[in-house]
Amino acid sequence: MTRVFSGIQPTGEPHIGNYFGAMRNYVRLGEQYGQNAIYCIVDLHAPTNPLAYDPAQLSRLTFEMALANMAVGLDPQKVLFFVQSQVREHSELSWLFTVSTPVGELERMTQYKDKAGKLESIPAGLLMYPVLMAADILLYKADTVPVGEDQTQHIELAREIARRFNHSYGETFPEPKAVLEQGALRVPGMDGHGKMGKSKGESSTMGLLESMDSIWTKLRVAPTDPARVRRTDPGNPEICLVFDYHKLFSDDQTVLEVADGCRTAGIGCIDCKKRLMVGIERELTPIQARAAELRQRPGAVLDGLHYGAEQARAIAAPVMEEVRGKMGFLKSQ
Amino acid sequence: MTRVFSGIQPTGEPHIGNYFGAMRNYVRLGEQYGQNAIYCIVDLHAPTNPLAYDPAQLSRLTFEMALANMAVGLDPQKVLFFVQSQVREHSELSWLFTVSTPVGELERMTQYKDKAGKLESIPAGLLMYPVLMAADILLYKADTVPVGEDQTQHIELAREIARRFNHSYGETFPEPKAVLEQGALRVPGMDGHGKMGKSKGESSTMGLLESMDSIWTKLRVAPTDPARVRRTDPGNPEICLVFDYHKLFSDDQTVLEVADGCRTAGIGCIDCKKRLMVGIERELTPIQARAAELRQRPGAVLDGLHYGAEQARAIAAPVMEEVRGKMGFLKSQ
Repeated sequence: MTRVFSGIQPTGEPHIGNYFGAMRNYVRLGEQYGQNAIYCIVDLHAPTNPLAYDPAQLSRLTFEMALANMAVGLDPQKVLFFVQSQVREHSELSWLFTVSTPVGELERMTQYKDKAGKLESIPAGLLMYPVLMAADILLYKADTVPVGEDQTQHIELAREIARRFNHSYGETFPEPKAVLEQGALRVPGMDGHGKMGKSKGESSTMGLLESMDSIWTKLRVAPTDPARVRRTDPGNPEICLVFDYHKLFSDDQTVLEVADGCRTAGIGCIDCKKRLMVGIERELTPIQARAAELRQRPGAVLDGLHYGAEQARAIAAPVMEEVRGKMGFLKSQ
Repeated sequence: MTRVFSGIQPTGEPHIGNYFGAMRNYVRLGEQYGQNAIYCIVDLHAPTNPLAYDPAQLSRLTFEMALANMAVGLDPQKVLFFVQSQVREHSELSWLFTVSTPVGELERMTQYKDKAGKLESIPAGLLMYPVLMAADILLYKADTVPVGEDQTQHIELAREIARRFNHSYGETFPEPKAVLEQGALRVPGMDGHGKMGKSKGESSTMGLLESMDSIWTKLRVAPTDPARVRRTDPGNPEICLVFDYHKLFSDDQTVLEVADGCRTAGIGCIDCKKRLMVGIERELTPIQARAAELRQRPGAVLDGLHYGAEQARAIAAPVMEEVRGKMGFLKSQ
């Protein structure tokens, strides 16, 4: 049996980088694995990043991330979708893994070294973060974790934690495998500088729930092939951001037409961008409509998360019972 | 309002060092503070000591420690007496404190440096131990912690954690004060080498629930004033282990008589030890009778702990609600 675990960071307004990079995949995997596809909004991790964490925003960002995923099609009745802090067993298992994870292994994590190097005072949460992450996964005995390249070392640590536990207390946990996210597309930022969401500022991101007017305002001034100065200059779509977006949003026919139009100076960049807006509108309008509808009924979003947390606990509670028993804790009645 | 928190380690059969050093005091403080006297068997800390932790024994040792304290007079109906692992909020609050406690502060703890120095691989539990300890105390907003000298640095850290939380999220926790245990008596081991329980082996400890025969077997060969070789040699009670025990167990009249008899060679060491047995029997017999009675009804012990855990959660749950709210986590419904 395959059980897939994905952690979703509640760290910002979702943008089309999240959508093509992850959210669309969640829905697809959910259709495949049902309740064995586990999506956890990992809000207990949020305060470990002192540079990004804002207590005044966390609850809103958590809600927004839940709403956006539901709008995209994640259904808490079909998959396991919940908020980490609403399932107490995460921090409990994390502590039980903490007791036996060597400090040295944690200090060797590349991401820890990178982040700690930028801080004057290193919060222990940064050091212990991958232990909580291992608990997140193993609490559900998940065996498959779709992650980006930067998380593979943390999954290797989770495997080591599972192995160590199994060795000390008897076979209990699977050793989860990292799988690189299939169909996860790398979406460039609207300023043309690197991956969307990595650079600062809203001007470089296309929000999943952003209005068409606002998207157009940004898109109109987005850079294209810098060699194409005049309308009559031919351009190279392969180095054009707008063409990258066409490949995400437009139908095959349009992609061929704008590429050809660009190379032959048959269409100008503004026309090309207007044709892109057609595809963006087609893709995002139904999602935004569902989001608007959910926003009218915030109780439905919270109910969905509440149901998800209950389902999650139904899996987590017997696992913790097993873990506590194997570690020798006195049974509560 | 004073609220007192004491952690009880489930790390061995209780001996008279525990009894005179702590357990008797628990009962006294319990009479004074009722439900504001909190006694927590800290079993989640047990696995942080890889040299002492045995999963096959933990549950039995936890039960024994509960039974012994109840036999001494701790009443779960009157004070708050429970097992840490049965109240999930301990590890949850510990994680929330972990995120903002600087690694450097934890590495500076003297006890950590001492213990870590003896290990090839340092488990993170040893480093994070004082954070869980801070959570144990602050989860109940306890303001008073009776501890031995070796724990004052950890209480100072708990104060710092409380201060830091209050500063970041608004006034929430009291800054707990360490108070040196009043009436805590230092009991020497039966081999005459240091504090009871610190040296290895059962031969140096007088178990609280040990049979009189077994105690006598150890006491008969216990060292006395080494200068007193023959029965007719006078001795010095001030350097005699047996006299230390007389001061714990015997009435004032007996203490005076044996001191005088020793100095004048009026009584021999064996007679002196026999008179001590009278006091030991008087002190321990009623405790052992209650223990035997409780052992016939293990369900009563477990029920008591279960009731205690419920009472503890009744305090802990609203505190966690407050903490989660202040840190910005999405409210569960």
